[in-house]
Amino acid sequence: SIQDETFGWIPNINAAFVLTDGYFVFIMQLGFAMLTAGSVRAKSAKSVCIKNVMDVMFGGVAYYLLGWAFAYGDKQECDADAVCSSVGNPFIGTEQFAMAGTPSTSFHTFYFQYVFAISTATIVSGAIAERIQFIAYAFYAFFICAWVYPVLSHWCWTASGFASPTRLASLGPLLLGSGVYDTVGSGAVHMMGGVAGLAGAWVAGPRLGRFNPTTGKPQPIHGHNAVYYTIGYLLLALGFFCFNSGTMAQIIAVDGTSFSGVVARCTISTTMGLCFGGITSVLVYLAYSKYTTGHAVWDLFSAGNGSLMGTIVITSGCATFAPWASAVGGIVGGLMYLPSSLFTLHVMKIDDPVDAFVVHGVGGAAGVIFYALFAEKDLVTELYGLLPDGSQRHWGCFMGDNGTVLAANLIWVLLIAGWTLGMMVPFFYILKLAGLLRLSPQDEEDGPDASHHGGSAYPGLEDAYGDYESSAK
Amino acid sequence: SIQDETFGWIPNINAAFVLTDGYFVFIMQLGFAMLTAGSVRAKSAKSVCIKNVMDVMFGGVAYYLLGWAFAYGDKQECDADAVCSSVGNPFIGTEQFAMAGTPSTSFHTFYFQYVFAISTATIVSGAIAERIQFIAYAFYAFFICAWVYPVLSHWCWTASGFASPTRLASLGPLLLGSGVYDTVGSGAVHMMGGVAGLAGAWVAGPRLGRFNPTTGKPQPIHGHNAVYYTIGYLLLALGFFCFNSGTMAQIIAVDGTSFSGVVARCTISTTMGLCFGGITSVLVYLAYSKYTTGHAVWDLFSAGNGSLMGTIVITSGCATFAPWASAVGGIVGGLMYLPSSLFTLHVMKIDDPVDAFVVHGVGGAAGVIFYALFAEKDLVTELYGLLPDGSQRHWGCFMGDNGTVLAANLIWVLLIAGWTLGMMVPFFYILKLAGLLRLSPQDEEDGPDASHHGGSAYPGLEDAYGDYESSAK
Amino acid sequence: SIQDETFGWIPNINAAFVLTDGYFVFIMQLGFAMLTAGSVRAKSAKSVCIKNVMDVMFGGVAYYLLGWAFAYGDKQECDADAVCSSVGNPFIGTEQFAMAGTPSTSFHTFYFQYVFAISTATIVSGAIAERIQFIAYAFYAFFICAWVYPVLSHWCWTASGFASPTRLASLGPLLLGSGVYDTVGSGAVHMMGGVAGLAGAWVAGPRLGRFNPTTGKPQPIHGHNAVYYTIGYLLLALGFFCFNSGTMAQIIAVDGTSFSGVVARCTISTTMGLCFGGITSVLVYLAYSKYTTGHAVWDLFSAGNGSLMGTIVITSGCATFAPWASAVGGIVGGLMYLPSSLFTLHVMKIDDPVDAFVVHGVGGAAGVIFYALFAEKDLVTELYGLLPDGSQRHWGCFMGDNGTVLAANLIWVLLIAGWTLGMMVPFFYILKLAGLLRLSPQDEEDGPDASHHGGSAYPGLEDAYGDYESSAK
Repeated sequence: SIQDETFGWIPNINAAFVLTDGYFVFIMQLGFAMLTAGSVRAKSAKSVCIKNVMDVMFGGVAYYLLGWAFAYGDKQECDADAVCSSVGNPFIGTEQFAMAGTPSTSFHTFYFQYVFAISTATIVSGAIAERIQFIAYAFYAFFICAWVYPVLSHWCWTASGFASPTRLASLGPLLLGSGVYDTVGSGAVHMMGGVAGLAGAWVAGPRLGRFNPTTGKPQPIHGHNAVYYTIGYLLLALGFFCFNSGTMAQIIAVDGTSFSGVVARCTISTTMGLCFGGITSVLVYLAYSKYTTGHAVWDLFSAGNGSLMGTIVITSGCATFAPWASAVGGIVGGLMYLPSSLFTLHVMKIDDPVDAFVVHGVGGAAGVIFYALFAEKDLVTELYGLLPDGSQRHWGCFMGDNGTVLAANLIWVLLIAGWTLGMMVPFFYILKLAGLLRLSPQDEEDGPDASHHGGSAYPGLEDAYGDYESSAK
Repeated sequence: SIQDETFGWIPNINAAFVLTDGYFVFIMQLGFAMLTAGSVRAKSAKSVCIKNVMDVMFGGVAYYLLGWAFAYGDKQECDADAVCSSVGNPFIGTEQFAMAGTPSTSFHTFYFQYVFAISTATIVSGAIAERIQFIAYAFYAFFICAWVYPVLSHWCWTASGFASPTRLASLGPLLLGSGVYDTVGSGAVHMMGGVAGLAGAWVAGPRLGRFNPTTGKPQPIHGHNAVYYTIGYLLLALGFFCFNSGTMAQIIAVDGTSFSGVVARCTISTTMGLCFGGITSVLVYLAYSKYTTGHAVWDLFSAGNGSLMGTIVITSGCATFAPWASAVGGIVGGLMYLPSSLFTLHVMKIDDPVDAFVVHGVGGAAGVIFYALFAEKDLVTELYGLLPDGSQRHWGCFMGDNGTVLAANLIWVLLIAGWTLGMMVPFFYILKLAGLLRLSPQDEEDGPDASHHGGSAYPGLEDAYGDYESSAK
Repeated sequence: SIQDETFGWIPNINAAFVLTDGYFVFIMQLGFAMLTAGSVRAKSAKSVCIKNVMDVMFGGVAYYLLGWAFAYGDKQECDADAVCSSVGNPFIGTEQFAMAGTPSTSFHTFYFQYVFAISTATIVSGAIAERIQFIAYAFYAFFICAWVYPVLSHWCWTASGFASPTRLASLGPLLLGSGVYDTVGSGAVHMMGGVAGLAGAWVAGPRLGRFNPTTGKPQPIHGHNAVYYTIGYLLLALGFFCFNSGTMAQIIAVDGTSFSGVVARCTISTTMGLCFGGITSVLVYLAYSKYTTGHAVWDLFSAGNGSLMGTIVITSGCATFAPWASAVGGIVGGLMYLPSSLFTLHVMKIDDPVDAFVVHGVGGAAGVIFYALFAEKDLVTELYGLLPDGSQRHWGCFMGDNGTVLAANLIWVLLIAGWTLGMMVPFFYILKLAGLLRLSPQDEEDGPDASHHGGSAYPGLEDAYGDYESSAK
């Protein structure tokens, strides 16, 4: 019938939408590369570049061979009419390794999930820049994209995951009768990546000279190119619009109802998070610099990092927040950035060259919680529908519901922290014991580009940069 | 019915189209940042970066709180069947401040208009680079995005605007029986931004050393990185395809008729403008350099700036020009670039580091007029339909119509100039009187990066750049 | 009827899809520019930039005036019901010069073909960087986009082309009863561009100092910026997703059947090629550097170039390969990169600063052949349908068919090589005889930026770069 025919178009329209947004998310790889390259010293620029180029590749192979299967490879059971549904495991997927049996109608989803997976690996790369052996990088990029991230995403986003709010009733009850709401991955992507970065930075230890050997006080190590940082920030901002809205996965629902309002809401929430986060963070730094040094600085890195942190606070709930709530989320992220950064550096003594743990780890945890506070009832229903039994889903406790989602999402924050630290700390520690984690002091002093990557990223400028980098210490 | 259901899909398809094109327009922020960063001295690179990063933010807050309401916040009156139509004010919108009451079906439009608004702020930033205090920048970015641009766009693009060609008959007659045709914003965006830049550059005065203190003759100040300029140009070119075609706002009309031909025509017109504009301008500079110095130079900046100027000439009429007419428009823009640039610098004594006034201001005015000359009758009807009374709309006077649109669009050019200068000259002047506009001579000499932004964009290369920049004067 | 109306939407949806993918392919211009700029010396950076900026323009004018007509300007014959079909020439198109008579329903196709055309010109630019006069560049960019590439594409991709697998039965038999399968242009775009680059690099000769004048052995000339290279690689990777999938030209077939699975398969194949190609090539270089120098290098350029070569191997067959086959293709490309590069440099004594001939020329030829080995029967049918007489099309000989496609595609490789060399060698030779090809030794020594483009790309850093570049020789 004409109805069947035309309704068959919808999945195609949605696939085009998802692919396009996926390409923009892929651009975030270049964004992270440039943001990190600009934030490190010239002698490490090429090592940052090859790492960010190759996590695209290691991540792709890992997600193809194993990750996709662990995340989405649910066993299906089909009835006589070939209508299938998941009979998957609550903890892990078990089919479709190397995409065996994956139908081409799922290929666009694979691509979108793949670009999400490589984001997590890339977040880590910033936190441990300038001091890690390339081989360690290769191993962890594979490990995260093949195992750590996919399993976590299985838990919260599939029809079988034990923490998923869309878990099939036939497979078990929802966690706390609600499931965790981490719609776009403030937790499963950003907090996970940030915490993994913390694990790496902690196990590897700080760069030589980052802390004064006598006093233990941090000494500044300036990034070598603010323009690269700017390219990085603006490409990440661009990518976030699609990271958030593309996750909606459809522009028209399969039953024909409109979905573009939900999608566009994600874009608007992202805009609010970016704008309010950056301005807030710049003003915080302005006051801080005036107060501590007497000289007020309009700081580019606070603008960029604070803006990204503001965005990550609204990421998970972008589809279920009013614009004003996303503005509040941006402000919260912008306010949190500097104190978290100072605490990580001065108190925790963690050397994280791009503040990846703060922006993604702390910001991501805040994002999971922010959903639980500000998600609106009607918007939750528009996005997720009612529960299978026809009852209303839980929503944000500041918007009139009780604290069920807050409790579930707090559990989720603890689960992410536990799973990520439990996987990554031993992993990095084993690499360290095997002598594969850290550059030798001489190689680090010379820079990884000279020692492992065939020479400086800037032949001809080594002297100018070298003089500066030695004298700076 | 099936008909109603499927027709309900069209707005969703169009929203996806508008969002995607909006993301490409957002990339223009990075384009402007890089084009400007490459065109200034190394000591100002970071100040350019933070300004372009933060007009995304200031503009976002401004457009969210006020701008959208002033531009599109028409009061609506609905009949018994809930069919609504505007009863808005001809001069300004009055509702939806902070998006209060904005339906999610308009969110994608908000986003597209937002990225347009921040383009205007960004154009100005180039014209007044290297000598303005950051605080002045923050104020004007907010002012332009909250007030100057939104009000202007209300006049020409809404159902209630006094100059709009789609003004509702119930709200008053069309200007000159026609309304002004500035479809994509050669005038309301580019000319406005360029003229605002002129106002800023004029009130702030030139950079130290730009004119010889004795002779008054301009002295060259070279941009510090031609590769950044190239990144900027190519990203702006990319963005222009979508700036122009995305403005069409639909790929299928709501009544189901095809609209992709109109959209693709915009893309083709843009291609013509970019290509013919750049080649023409390069050849003009080749002849000029040969004639004035005896040495023929193939000039990158003429290629880029002339190409953008050619594109802006065809921007407003991109949907209503044959490809050959857009090629002519590109050539016109390419021919105008160098003489306009020389006139602005040598005669008007304006120091505009990126020729923003020439490319956007002069090019934008030319674009408003170019529509009035070359718009084709059938294409105007395809885009705008007939007038409410069923009569034919006016079209280009070179294509067989009389000069009605030319008269209306000339009025529009005067209105834009008057409104923009009337708003921005006093605005910049007040900042100047308050001591908030210009950097101190010492801060300017040291560079804004060192004096206000925490240090050079390129730690380690300050000496090499510094020696050059001092000796160059 | 409702059916006619809604089916009329499909071409619009497809046009939006093609335009979006075309914009991403346009980004490849920036990708090539940055990859090449990073791979040459600082004294040539601006010349690379203006060349890549202006082949957008020369190519646009060329393709508008002539190229589109030669490629797709088939004469049409229409019956009484206005149903038209091609009665075109098997060798060349003959209508629609300067887009005269091109309907706006073809404008999006024009745009997509245009961005393909300028890719070919850009490939060549890398191969002959640092030693060619700008005027030679202008001539050849025009020549390739107006003539060489369009004619070749007519042969393989139109309803009338003598080698096309979709040739109308009324216009003649299929080549070997099959036609050549070069779906996305591994051959017609990449091999053609790479071989044209070889022709240019051979006729122009190597850069001064590339080979030791006494021993004839190659001496290293390092690229000046690895970060630019990285920007270039990642933007090319991004563009390749859409280069490959956008060629499918539709997301829903005109008869309403789903096509997004085919499109997404191209994206996945591209992912496989990129990932497996890069990792393989990096490991090959790691072993090679360890074996030849005793020092193992993780090489950024091998990662990028090998990844692109792996992708080009799977380009033509991206829609007809299983993911595992594309992984194999990536590995094949990655294995071929270093040996091909060494052979070209050491044995053929060709100086190709970006290995354009290897990556695109050799990789492209391999891609044409790879289709003939691994294309799957069902996927060929899904993409191309059955033959007009209802019989099955031929497919890959490793997948169960005989060697028909292999024979046809081998002929195609020879035709591309013959046509390209036959056109480009005389073309470059005539330029050489006319004294228009090569820079003078002094101009080359000074660098093209200083001698022809108004000065260094990096005012202030000339001394640092200059000292290095002199001492390096």
